[in-house]
Amino acid sequence: MLTIMRTRKVALAFGRVLREARLQKGISQDGLASLCDFDRTYPSLLERGLRRPTLAMIFRLAEALEINPSLLVTRTYDELRRL
Amino acid sequence: MLTIMRTRKVALAFGRVLREARLQKGISQDGLASLCDFDRTYPSLLERGLRRPTLAMIFRLAEALEINPSLLVTRTYDELRRL
Repeated sequence: MLTIMRTRKVALAFGRVLREARLQKGISQDGLASLCDFDRTYPSLLERGLRRPTLAMIFRLAEALEINPSLLVTRTYDELRRL
Repeated sequence: MLTIMRTRKVALAFGRVLREARLQKGISQDGLASLCDFDRTYPSLLERGLRRPTLAMIFRLAEALEINPSLLVTRTYDELRRL
């Protein structure tokens, strides 16, 4: 079980979930960065699994995407099983 | 709304939630560190809000505490409103 908990895989799984949620909302990576007050490059790095999402960031992203933060977490957990 | 999303507050809120979940499970900070394969000092730092929890860590903690990771997130979100 611990194998699917590895940091890199979690970042990759979260990246996919974030990308899907952003596209569903119909906003660009730049738009998301702006809404979250992130550096412009940050959403792209997150979506490619190149940054480890912290809980504070997940709250900000969820707020910007108008979805429940726990939903992003549940989806990431599910996505991990597919990696 | 963004004010409650600030990193420091999120870490503090998560720390309280983690502590409560750990005590409810009846395990020590050392025991939790061992279950998660964390450094022995790490649970204490997290519980005091001195480390920012990443999603990968939340998954490992939830696994060790045998609770749903999204529940830790929901509780943290609620706790933020009390800070």
